Amino acid sequence: MFELIFISALVSVLALLSAFMFHRVMAKHDAGTARMKELQSYIREGAWTFMTEEAKAFALVMLVIAAVLWGIFYWEVAVAFLIGAVLSMSAGFIGMNSATLANARVTNAARKDSKRALNVAMAGGAVMGLSVAGLALGGLTLVIFLFQGSFDPSVIHIESKAVPIVSQIIGRNLNFIKAALIVSAYSMGASLVALFDRVGGEIYTKAADMGADLVGKAEEHLPEDDPRNPATIADNVGDNVGDVGGLGADLLESFVGSIISVIVIMLYLFVARGNPDIGALLGKITAGTGIAAADYWWLVITPLVIISGGIIASLLGVMYVLVSRGKEKLQGVLMNGTRIAAVLTVALTYVIVYVSPLGMNVFWAVLIGVVTGIVIGYVSEYYTSSHFGPVKKVAEADDAGAAIGVTYGMAVGMLSTFVPGIAIAVAVVLTYWLAGLVGVAFGALGMLSFVGMTVAVDTYGPIADNAGGIAQGSNLPHAVRKRTDNLDSIGNTTAAIGKGFAIGSAAFSALALIAAYMWSAIGSAGEVQIPSIEIISTNPLIGGTVVAALFLGAMVPYVFSALLIQGVSDTANKMVREIRRQFKADAGILKGKSKPDFNRCIAITSKSSLKKMVLPALLTITMPFLIGFLLGRFALAGFLIGALLSCMQLAIYCANTGGALDNAKKFIEEGHYGGKGSEAHVSSVIGDTVGDPLKDTVGPSLDILVKLMSVVSILFASLFPVYPVIFP
Amino acid sequence: MFELIFISALVSVLALLSAFMFHRVMAKHDAGTARMKELQSYIREGAWTFMTEEAKAFALVMLVIAAVLWGIFYWEVAVAFLIGAVLSMSAGFIGMNSATLANARVTNAARKDSKRALNVAMAGGAVMGLSVAGLALGGLTLVIFLFQGSFDPSVIHIESKAVPIVSQIIGRNLNFIKAALIVSAYSMGASLVALFDRVGGEIYTKAADMGADLVGKAEEHLPEDDPRNPATIADNVGDNVGDVGGLGADLLESFVGSIISVIVIMLYLFVARGNPDIGALLGKITAGTGIAAADYWWLVITPLVIISGGIIASLLGVMYVLVSRGKEKLQGVLMNGTRIAAVLTVALTYVIVYVSPLGMNVFWAVLIGVVTGIVIGYVSEYYTSSHFGPVKKVAEADDAGAAIGVTYGMAVGMLSTFVPGIAIAVAVVLTYWLAGLVGVAFGALGMLSFVGMTVAVDTYGPIADNAGGIAQGSNLPHAVRKRTDNLDSIGNTTAAIGKGFAIGSAAFSALALIAAYMWSAIGSAGEVQIPSIEIISTNPLIGGTVVAALFLGAMVPYVFSALLIQGVSDTANKMVREIRRQFKADAGILKGKSKPDFNRCIAITSKSSLKKMVLPALLTITMPFLIGFLLGRFALAGFLIGALLSCMQLAIYCANTGGALDNAKKFIEEGHYGGKGSEAHVSSVIGDTVGDPLKDTVGPSLDILVKLMSVVSILFASLFPVYPVIFP
Repeated sequence: MFELIFISALVSVLALLSAFMFHRVMAKHDAGTARMKELQSYIREGAWTFMTEEAKAFALVMLVIAAVLWGIFYWEVAVAFLIGAVLSMSAGFIGMNSATLANARVTNAARKDSKRALNVAMAGGAVMGLSVAGLALGGLTLVIFLFQGSFDPSVIHIESKAVPIVSQIIGRNLNFIKAALIVSAYSMGASLVALFDRVGGEIYTKAADMGADLVGKAEEHLPEDDPRNPATIADNVGDNVGDVGGLGADLLESFVGSIISVIVIMLYLFVARGNPDIGALLGKITAGTGIAAADYWWLVITPLVIISGGIIASLLGVMYVLVSRGKEKLQGVLMNGTRIAAVLTVALTYVIVYVSPLGMNVFWAVLIGVVTGIVIGYVSEYYTSSHFGPVKKVAEADDAGAAIGVTYGMAVGMLSTFVPGIAIAVAVVLTYWLAGLVGVAFGALGMLSFVGMTVAVDTYGPIADNAGGIAQGSNLPHAVRKRTDNLDSIGNTTAAIGKGFAIGSAAFSALALIAAYMWSAIGSAGEVQIPSIEIISTNPLIGGTVVAALFLGAMVPYVFSALLIQGVSDTANKMVREIRRQFKADAGILKGKSKPDFNRCIAITSKSSLKKMVLPALLTITMPFLIGFLLGRFALAGFLIGALLSCMQLAIYCANTGGALDNAKKFIEEGHYGGKGSEAHVSSVIGDTVGDPLKDTVGPSLDILVKLMSVVSILFASLFPVYPVIFP
Repeated sequence: MFELIFISALVSVLALLSAFMFHRVMAKHDAGTARMKELQSYIREGAWTFMTEEAKAFALVMLVIAAVLWGIFYWEVAVAFLIGAVLSMSAGFIGMNSATLANARVTNAARKDSKRALNVAMAGGAVMGLSVAGLALGGLTLVIFLFQGSFDPSVIHIESKAVPIVSQIIGRNLNFIKAALIVSAYSMGASLVALFDRVGGEIYTKAADMGADLVGKAEEHLPEDDPRNPATIADNVGDNVGDVGGLGADLLESFVGSIISVIVIMLYLFVARGNPDIGALLGKITAGTGIAAADYWWLVITPLVIISGGIIASLLGVMYVLVSRGKEKLQGVLMNGTRIAAVLTVALTYVIVYVSPLGMNVFWAVLIGVVTGIVIGYVSEYYTSSHFGPVKKVAEADDAGAAIGVTYGMAVGMLSTFVPGIAIAVAVVLTYWLAGLVGVAFGALGMLSFVGMTVAVDTYGPIADNAGGIAQGSNLPHAVRKRTDNLDSIGNTTAAIGKGFAIGSAAFSALALIAAYMWSAIGSAGEVQIPSIEIISTNPLIGGTVVAALFLGAMVPYVFSALLIQGVSDTANKMVREIRRQFKADAGILKGKSKPDFNRCIAITSKSSLKKMVLPALLTITMPFLIGFLLGRFALAGFLIGALLSCMQLAIYCANTGGALDNAKKFIEEGHYGGKGSEAHVSSVIGDTVGDPLKDTVGPSLDILVKLMSVVSILFASLFPVYPVIFP
């Protein structure tokens, strides 16, 4: 049934065509007055400049890695890696491009009415959503199609001494399944670019934001987005390179990760189907009928077909938002669009699984994934929305002083790990029970299958935010700014649910990737070994190293987060000095008589944020190698588990602490506790500034961290010794 | 060689006698002017009232638990539990009592010279240090002596159906080693009281501190410890119930935990010595000679003898500090005292292990423990002392604004997990290699063996702090306050190293306790099962539940921390309102004409902090039961590992973030960035207030959390099913 791949090819093309169509629809709108167009062009130019520089900066890195992959393994692996990297980069560019076109158009539409503005923003978001989904699926389809020889079940085998020289250098045979290497390399390319894009972009945006606020708002009392502030454009550029460009690459990475973890596990299951343990597991997935060699392609391509269903569902969800007449509340429209996408995805999955030789357990696993994502999303919403208790209590604490506000915000973030922890635990137990680790992998797939819709809504937010900036900068009537603010805020709930899916799926696909890594150790006789990792073993060679690696794994996310935060602080510091310098050098700027030097601010932020992403990226890539080479394969699994546990908790804590502190500020600005300018407001601004890098820089990057380390481990597993080399 | 126990009995008596002697020496000093005595009596009364109420509050809980233990197991288990609880409580009382006598005496001595004041403070600290060590060792010696019948190797056996009714109710036989239950119950008693004391005391002290600062300092601009501030006494009471009373119970708990984990593992090793895996492990510990039945008592009592050596070393270290002539710098005196204690402990351990039938591997493990503790301590010092880069950078960030300061402080805390993570990993690998999990347990023992000295120095700090408060409140000359401040600060480095030992040993003993828990599963045929916990197994019954439990375990410390922080915030909030009320009700207070109502502040803080410790305590105790009963024994091990990983990282992060923010404030107060009253100073005060509950409430409590959950698991392991009950 290799022909199934044409379904995913067709749907990828459909997704990309509709993205193009939405782009045309959006671009047809007018971008407004000359001033608006001028601001837009500044932002566009700044964003293009940064992302091009970023792309150049890591083009070389990518080529070096591709060369290494070719040297160690095969040219196909290197090509798959480059395809993944290029597509991830493209997703960022496409999203950024459409967002920087949409922003002024949304502002202009908001001069007339809200629904029209919503439509423009949504069309802009949909370009990104459908591009991400289409590129990810299309790329993987292409890779499988191009290299189908390596995937053919009759050819699937363990290639030994693929590169005899490397084998000789490391003193071991290189044993692996070639097809697994190819899809993993594709995923690694996507993840690596995502890490760079996310980290670089988010350091950029938060540093620009903090710099603009600290001098502009706090010292000179300029309003947000005031054109006299030299950092205003950099701030708006940041929204596009971080919250849009970074987000696109990030979600593409998650999406790819969740698909390839299913495929890799399926490959190993098929190869090892003679093993009784694996046979039992296959029985669970296939409702007891087992899998015939003829059904092989179903195993590899079913995940792609399920995803294709999710893309169609997303497309319909987006259409619903655009054609709805705006009689209902706008927030309801967005929610309904997401609901439609979710329900349709589940329904289509049911049909697909029913038709396939897989058993219904797979469908239930997908359903559990979708439900878990929704639960985590609603919990985030509860802890970070000003409609509920926690944020109101943070605002009350802000009223007692900045320190109590920040402390309380941190407590809210910590507390918010409770329900997601339980939801993930329950889902893991159930999906595992249904179909072993394959069930967990399908759960992740379920959470991300309608990514087209969730990315569209996620992108819609920063577009509306930028539109507000342009309204402010072009001195449009206050009502316009109010409308764009409203548009921004109604996307928040839906975006929170999207974040729930992102976090939940990261946990699930990381787990599936770790399992795939463990199984990727192939014995010298060519058999798939299915080792279980023992924590605390009586074997002195394994026991201590696994425990030690668990500790090291749990530590890495903290150090990684620290490096990101320091990157933001240091860059913001440079920005603060530059803004102060400009105000001092030319007194006309503050009076609105001279034009500030926007470009210098942009250049400083760009340079610094590109520099600051080097160390965290290096840490992420080198740690698996260090652990693998020094402590061996078992310890590396422990390391990944430790990192996963730590990442998940930190990511939820950071995201919700930042969200709660942010919305407490907005709640106070609505007039509570004295409103704007009150003591409580000053406290809440401090709280918001503390929370911002946690929420936008650290939280999302942690999700990428653990998946990238897992995928690197899968790829290079065969290089590492089984037992630690540190003992004689 | 049961007679060995007389060594530990003798040393316990010696420790308690010297504590009594130091108490007499300290109490002979004069407490100064009438005003000083008055302030002292307020603080003393407040502290006694709170700790008595606290003790009453959990006396009932303790009795209920003892009854349950008796009902399920044996009366001996219940008695051991109560002994542990009472001794832990006593340690808190003794420390608090001596500290509240010493404070004014230190102030008075500081009117003459610094060395004299140091001696009084050190004598006060030594009372606590030697009491903690003496009580812990003495109690355990007593328990073993009283119940030696259950420890006798000829009697050691697996008692089945000890309580046939319970066995029938849960539908399984209760299988366990009675001696292991007895020592674990002793440890659980100590841990439970420590949790209550630490959590209750630290919520009290931080809430009083924040309340006093927020209204007194920030709103009314009173200096620290001003007698017009109604919360001043509560603040000083807090130092004694939290930083002294809580600390005493906490360190006693750590100390006991590290000893009993060695004993429990030794018991299982001895019982299962026929098993080839265990035989190999025993070979490593005994340098290949194995262990004869006649040498049995060596296994149980050697840890007590090593600890006895540590106590003697601590006593000599304390003596050195007291008799040194003060020609060297005072900080050097304290450091040398600690160095003497460390070196002597190592030397004595060498002799003891050499004499015993154990091999030198055990000695090396102890040495690695000591070195690791020192490394972690120096790293804490580096990240939290104003002499080094990190704190200076936090101060620089404070100058850019409160938000950047707090953010940077958090980054420093996160970064500070790097070296400790590596140090712990290396130590685990090495100790495991030397002697399996027994090696890890001996490493923990090494870190804590000279606890008498580290507790003395740790207690010395709050005494000096209190002395400063009394100096301020009694309007003594500025020079006196300056001297006490200096005394306070020179203890900081030594205290930081003490904290390193506390954190490192928590990781190590928790690991040893978790291993002991796993081995405590005894088969129905009476054999000791040595299962290894598989993470990600192909067994669908175990696999999913262990992974789920890992996630749950990693989540619990976050929720626990959130509850503590909320407890502090809520209590501080009540305090703020009460202080404002008093200032409003009687304008004479601020003018210094009327006396504020200290007692109302004390009563409000007491009541609220006792209430706020219920939920975190419940969470800690119920979680192991929930996981054990629902998901089974394997999953519970996963849960404990997840909790350990999360606790360690959070504890280091919280402790060092708080420390860095605190010392950045002090650095600025020394005159940097504009000194007191500058913008930077305002920022740093906010930072300090954010960091305080992290450093003093959350950090230390997390160490107790993981050990208490492990010990509860060991005790009740036999009640839990092996496989999850949630599946049909």
